[in-house]
Amino acid sequence: MHPPLAAVRDVVARALAEDVLPLGDLSASLVPAHVRARACFVSRGEGVLAGRLSAAEVFAQVDGDLKVDWHLDDGDTVTPRTAIGVVGGPLCSILTAERTALNLLAHLSGVATLTRSYVRAVAGTGTRILDTRKTTPGLRALEKAAVRAGGGHNHRGNLADFVLVKDNHLAGVSIGEAVRGARAKWPMRMVEVECDRLDQVSEALAAGAGAVLLDNMTPDAVATCVAEVGGRIPVEVSGGVTLHTVRAYAGAGADFISVGALTASAPAFDIGLDLES
Amino acid sequence: MHPPLAAVRDVVARALAEDVLPLGDLSASLVPAHVRARACFVSRGEGVLAGRLSAAEVFAQVDGDLKVDWHLDDGDTVTPRTAIGVVGGPLCSILTAERTALNLLAHLSGVATLTRSYVRAVAGTGTRILDTRKTTPGLRALEKAAVRAGGGHNHRGNLADFVLVKDNHLAGVSIGEAVRGARAKWPMRMVEVECDRLDQVSEALAAGAGAVLLDNMTPDAVATCVAEVGGRIPVEVSGGVTLHTVRAYAGAGADFISVGALTASAPAFDIGLDLES
Amino acid sequence: MHPPLAAVRDVVARALAEDVLPLGDLSASLVPAHVRARACFVSRGEGVLAGRLSAAEVFAQVDGDLKVDWHLDDGDTVTPRTAIGVVGGPLCSILTAERTALNLLAHLSGVATLTRSYVRAVAGTGTRILDTRKTTPGLRALEKAAVRAGGGHNHRGNLADFVLVKDNHLAGVSIGEAVRGARAKWPMRMVEVECDRLDQVSEALAAGAGAVLLDNMTPDAVATCVAEVGGRIPVEVSGGVTLHTVRAYAGAGADFISVGALTASAPAFDIGLDLES
Amino acid sequence: MHPPLAAVRDVVARALAEDVLPLGDLSASLVPAHVRARACFVSRGEGVLAGRLSAAEVFAQVDGDLKVDWHLDDGDTVTPRTAIGVVGGPLCSILTAERTALNLLAHLSGVATLTRSYVRAVAGTGTRILDTRKTTPGLRALEKAAVRAGGGHNHRGNLADFVLVKDNHLAGVSIGEAVRGARAKWPMRMVEVECDRLDQVSEALAAGAGAVLLDNMTPDAVATCVAEVGGRIPVEVSGGVTLHTVRAYAGAGADFISVGALTASAPAFDIGLDLES
Amino acid sequence: MHPPLAAVRDVVARALAEDVLPLGDLSASLVPAHVRARACFVSRGEGVLAGRLSAAEVFAQVDGDLKVDWHLDDGDTVTPRTAIGVVGGPLCSILTAERTALNLLAHLSGVATLTRSYVRAVAGTGTRILDTRKTTPGLRALEKAAVRAGGGHNHRGNLADFVLVKDNHLAGVSIGEAVRGARAKWPMRMVEVECDRLDQVSEALAAGAGAVLLDNMTPDAVATCVAEVGGRIPVEVSGGVTLHTVRAYAGAGADFISVGALTASAPAFDIGLDLES
Amino acid sequence: MHPPLAAVRDVVARALAEDVLPLGDLSASLVPAHVRARACFVSRGEGVLAGRLSAAEVFAQVDGDLKVDWHLDDGDTVTPRTAIGVVGGPLCSILTAERTALNLLAHLSGVATLTRSYVRAVAGTGTRILDTRKTTPGLRALEKAAVRAGGGHNHRGNLADFVLVKDNHLAGVSIGEAVRGARAKWPMRMVEVECDRLDQVSEALAAGAGAVLLDNMTPDAVATCVAEVGGRIPVEVSGGVTLHTVRAYAGAGADFISVGALTASAPAFDIGLDLES
Repeated sequence: MHPPLAAVRDVVARALAEDVLPLGDLSASLVPAHVRARACFVSRGEGVLAGRLSAAEVFAQVDGDLKVDWHLDDGDTVTPRTAIGVVGGPLCSILTAERTALNLLAHLSGVATLTRSYVRAVAGTGTRILDTRKTTPGLRALEKAAVRAGGGHNHRGNLADFVLVKDNHLAGVSIGEAVRGARAKWPMRMVEVECDRLDQVSEALAAGAGAVLLDNMTPDAVATCVAEVGGRIPVEVSGGVTLHTVRAYAGAGADFISVGALTASAPAFDIGLDLES
Repeated sequence: MHPPLAAVRDVVARALAEDVLPLGDLSASLVPAHVRARACFVSRGEGVLAGRLSAAEVFAQVDGDLKVDWHLDDGDTVTPRTAIGVVGGPLCSILTAERTALNLLAHLSGVATLTRSYVRAVAGTGTRILDTRKTTPGLRALEKAAVRAGGGHNHRGNLADFVLVKDNHLAGVSIGEAVRGARAKWPMRMVEVECDRLDQVSEALAAGAGAVLLDNMTPDAVATCVAEVGGRIPVEVSGGVTLHTVRAYAGAGADFISVGALTASAPAFDIGLDLES
Repeated sequence: MHPPLAAVRDVVARALAEDVLPLGDLSASLVPAHVRARACFVSRGEGVLAGRLSAAEVFAQVDGDLKVDWHLDDGDTVTPRTAIGVVGGPLCSILTAERTALNLLAHLSGVATLTRSYVRAVAGTGTRILDTRKTTPGLRALEKAAVRAGGGHNHRGNLADFVLVKDNHLAGVSIGEAVRGARAKWPMRMVEVECDRLDQVSEALAAGAGAVLLDNMTPDAVATCVAEVGGRIPVEVSGGVTLHTVRAYAGAGADFISVGALTASAPAFDIGLDLES
Repeated sequence: MHPPLAAVRDVVARALAEDVLPLGDLSASLVPAHVRARACFVSRGEGVLAGRLSAAEVFAQVDGDLKVDWHLDDGDTVTPRTAIGVVGGPLCSILTAERTALNLLAHLSGVATLTRSYVRAVAGTGTRILDTRKTTPGLRALEKAAVRAGGGHNHRGNLADFVLVKDNHLAGVSIGEAVRGARAKWPMRMVEVECDRLDQVSEALAAGAGAVLLDNMTPDAVATCVAEVGGRIPVEVSGGVTLHTVRAYAGAGADFISVGALTASAPAFDIGLDLES
Repeated sequence: MHPPLAAVRDVVARALAEDVLPLGDLSASLVPAHVRARACFVSRGEGVLAGRLSAAEVFAQVDGDLKVDWHLDDGDTVTPRTAIGVVGGPLCSILTAERTALNLLAHLSGVATLTRSYVRAVAGTGTRILDTRKTTPGLRALEKAAVRAGGGHNHRGNLADFVLVKDNHLAGVSIGEAVRGARAKWPMRMVEVECDRLDQVSEALAAGAGAVLLDNMTPDAVATCVAEVGGRIPVEVSGGVTLHTVRAYAGAGADFISVGALTASAPAFDIGLDLES
Repeated sequence: MHPPLAAVRDVVARALAEDVLPLGDLSASLVPAHVRARACFVSRGEGVLAGRLSAAEVFAQVDGDLKVDWHLDDGDTVTPRTAIGVVGGPLCSILTAERTALNLLAHLSGVATLTRSYVRAVAGTGTRILDTRKTTPGLRALEKAAVRAGGGHNHRGNLADFVLVKDNHLAGVSIGEAVRGARAKWPMRMVEVECDRLDQVSEALAAGAGAVLLDNMTPDAVATCVAEVGGRIPVEVSGGVTLHTVRAYAGAGADFISVGALTASAPAFDIGLDLES
């Protein structure tokens, strides 16, 4: 599922504004307006495509005379030199749109590609990879869609989605009191409890939590907690998980592993726009 | 120099909107409104701070009753457990603002920290590190300020700043014709020419270019071009430069080395917000 | 006359944003993208249609592939099971747009329907029904168009339209002084005076007011004031008028009766969107 | 919990813009700028207050020189002539702000008051009253906060919160397949299933739905479904419930009753702003 | 009366954004942040001040640490070297704000000054000077306030204010039919009729028009029409009136003369910002 | 080169909003919706066209059913009664769009026409005419494009483009120090120095300035400075240059003459929209 069109339109309008105002593209102004061209999006590495809707929106907003034909969609795998799509129309408009379109594709495909790495690292274990709220300001909707394109799943969309009781929310009340308060105040919502220790897991379970988040535990500690939970509610693991350690956590029985790096530290995936000669 | 306040306000307003609408912070609603607290921004690694103005704006927009005292400013170096600043006020407001403030600090400090690494790698050579237009959509102003905080310099702010003639802009005219056209159309602006070969450098020089950008050359080829230019105009190197190769390019005599990764692939710098007990 | 397109576009963009951000329509994501459908807007009661332009804009903004054919226009009467229009296209897009389109149609048709009730209650008397500035924040333009669709007329569009001197505006000056001041300051504008007593009506008349607004009077008191005015300027009645009392006020000779409830208290008119099987 | 400040600021800015642009308040311009006054918000009926934060924001945006002191907060009960709060400052600014502040208070208190009526109608049964997505376009965040002020609870904030599988989402798959698909795609989210018949309830239960929504059933049919569910998951009732029938549905054992009218058809609650003499 | 604050805030935010994004003020970055200064707005010619609220807003948005003290207000007369106000605070912020503040003051004072010239040209005749809708896109509210500062009055704020029937609106109906239609559709609004000939004036009068606009007539023709109207409704003159001809039109008995040049062709009034040494 | 589409869309949306909200075009509502018409943009004087893209956008935003055919483009010369373009479609939509489209065309063509006058006044001298940052707030992008249409060139787009060191930026440092600081901080940017005296020109030259701006000098003083510079860097003249004096400055050898009046004081160019009968 692509990100909501409303979010895409808004992100693209801002990205173009910051790249062309107030004078427009000085360099592209050197190209006569009648020169037309075709250019192909080509991947420079191995990864997962994301951001197609955003790139298309860039061209649509720059010049209604530009047409894009896509060969692939978000979630598709690319290898070096894979042709992703072709844009045709006035050369000066292609040049003006190029960097903004590539920035979106590169960033979002970077997110999807890193997500796919984590998903593959836990393949066969039944564990699922989640994102977090550690997203780039302004790009929440697009990055969360890119995580889905990479095979991951979305944790909370934002603070208004469901309840996650952390240590700092307790403020003098017990986990049990907090969970009961949350369920009373926000019925029909997931109430998840962040736990640092086994006894907190037990307390959360007893209070009727909908899930527990095991924060910064070792795989062994996770396994102990998973045993305590006994499949009654989902167990999420978070905190400092890397590509090297993620499978150990999956092996410990976590239902979900959430990874902030998916959106906060994904390197751009290299995609170019090659003019057809 | 901090980023323009107008940009900061806008980015923060959007970041908060995407994190709290439509229902607000469900979890923070469990904390009684009268509970007050203090929390300290603490670095978890070694790096360079950036984004202070943005983080301050987050707290200001969430609750006018929150006060922040900063111990450090953008560009300052931090090591693990450095206290960066303290925020005090209603606990529920601190919790609501926490993630957005941290996302901005972590991303922008990540950019500053990576920039500093490149700057240090060329220390003593006189070469300067530049950013590019490969910025995160919507964050151009903030990321370019973070590059400055890291000791780098800003290449074009956007397409309206100055002229960069690339191969694709030629469209049947020679480099010389393009440069003369650019200087006629956009007087008082830098006209830089991207060159892939030595003869293009000579042509650009002859046409009165203000700078040349050597794209994807080896350090040896760069050295040859630098000799050809002979100090008459600045020489910029770009394309696939890494922390491992950057010093070789500096040694080849480049005045500037521009690095897209500074803004496109900087991992988040880990900063936490620790509640004071 | 439909509401200004500029207002409609803005209202719809905000309504969609608040319903789908940041993750989009989770439920509609379960429907395969290739499934297409047709659905019919059907009234569930007796009333007056309003909001067609807004509903159409919802579909246009959600998915350019959706097409709507309308059988009726704003101001048309509907009875239970009247087919209002048909939308066709991707089922998932229809489902995402459905609630926002219906919310607009239901609210605005509710305003039109209540307006029509008041208009009918005074039928044959020559009295006209006006709205007020008691509109829903953000929906002024759309609700005032719905009042017109219901056969009512628009009082002031906003505070910048014309002058309405109320008791609180006097601040130590007489009605006469206030009216003369208003006519001097805002020539070519209507200057209406709110009156609670007969002597104020006389004073307003003498001062050259363009209309009087009789606030919270009985029908008898209105009749006395109407006689005093003697047709020289329009007489408006306002304040606590209900469907039960409106005809008595019309019978007392009021030229206009303004009713805040038209926009502030109109219940939603029930309209459904039935999928064609 | 008040609505998010970000939403309030935005709604108020738009409401003021539509009431004063382009020329400002013509009538208030007749009042000399130096005249100062105090005015008191006074209820005209029995109800529940909501919208305090919005009204305060109106005054703040109109004139920083206005000060408001509140005697009551959202959720407090008012009776005729209850003093709610006092605003003081330049009279012309009070007059300009008055209608927008009152429109927000009246509409949101209307929502809270109607909600309280439903909550009281089911008092003692353990059933809770929920709102729906039938909110006024642009006011989702404020109306959902008003429902909470009235003692109700919030169903989905929007389409991105959790999954509600309706008949139209099935598109050729069974309820069981749809639920399993939803749980696979959106783990950690509530998956609720709308049911028209008892066998659908059984199917939803078997598929692991998190809740069932019984649509347009009689209280007797609800009781049968409640018995079938046997307390394993929450049961929500929706569709045409009125103040007259709501207690019968509560008596039938529904955990939740959702009422679109709370936000779609709440009449404005009458509040005035009385100038102190 | 100053323009609405909502309009001022919006105009200033956009003006600053277009002047500082994305990199901020490069030149001001050379000034150390701790250097403080005071600077005085000084007029360079004879005219009328307007735009004080806008200039103040510029400083407020650039840096909350800047303070402005005004010696004069909108509508006050200035001569060469009149001190208008003083701003104090960080020098770099004063320099960044300077041009935007001056652009607003110069443009709006230019409008006020030109208006004052027309007002003086008709002094003693009782004729009043009106603006038109020929305003600069985006500055309607500010320019119309500047006209008032210059002693002029505001014609329609926009198309939604009142009815002006021009030749093009007739579309096959007579003036009489059009006026009656307008009064039926938009009661309580001024209905003005544009007339090119005396017989049209008579027709408009007979139909109950609220005012006539005599378009592009000679002063003699205006006098004839004024005699025909006989004081029953206001007479407005428009079309090609200049400072040289305006008094002749006033002498012909026009109640109002509307002048598009007030807002469309007012030269900037020269105001400087002098740093105190 | 037309202005950036992003800027045009934004300016037009605001211009329309301020002209039609909240009630729409009352007068155009008198025209039956089915009446169609064609109207021709006709110049009323001699000048240069600019603003075509903006005018077209007005019609597109008012009604998608309007079509415009242009006979001329920005930069083309017009004489009295030149047909510029034709718009066809619903008459009521043409009337609603008319004033906003004309305001943009008239203002921007006014800028282009005044620019052309200055350009012609220096014809044959090799001197080029530049604009300044004295633009109308909100219209920077459109006005700078109009200057280009008139044959002028753009000085800085905004404060973020390049460095202009004025007296006020020195704050205790010498011109030499300031230039070196600027070149160190903002490499690859033009660093221009404003000079009031010959010795400052020498100092700027010695420090490596990229250009000098001679402020408020006589043509003789300019000639002296030009001789001192000796062609090494461009010389710009600014300050109080008029159509009467501009050629003298050009004759003194200035490379560029910047004229604030181009955008700050250009009278509207008269263009009408004539309905075809």
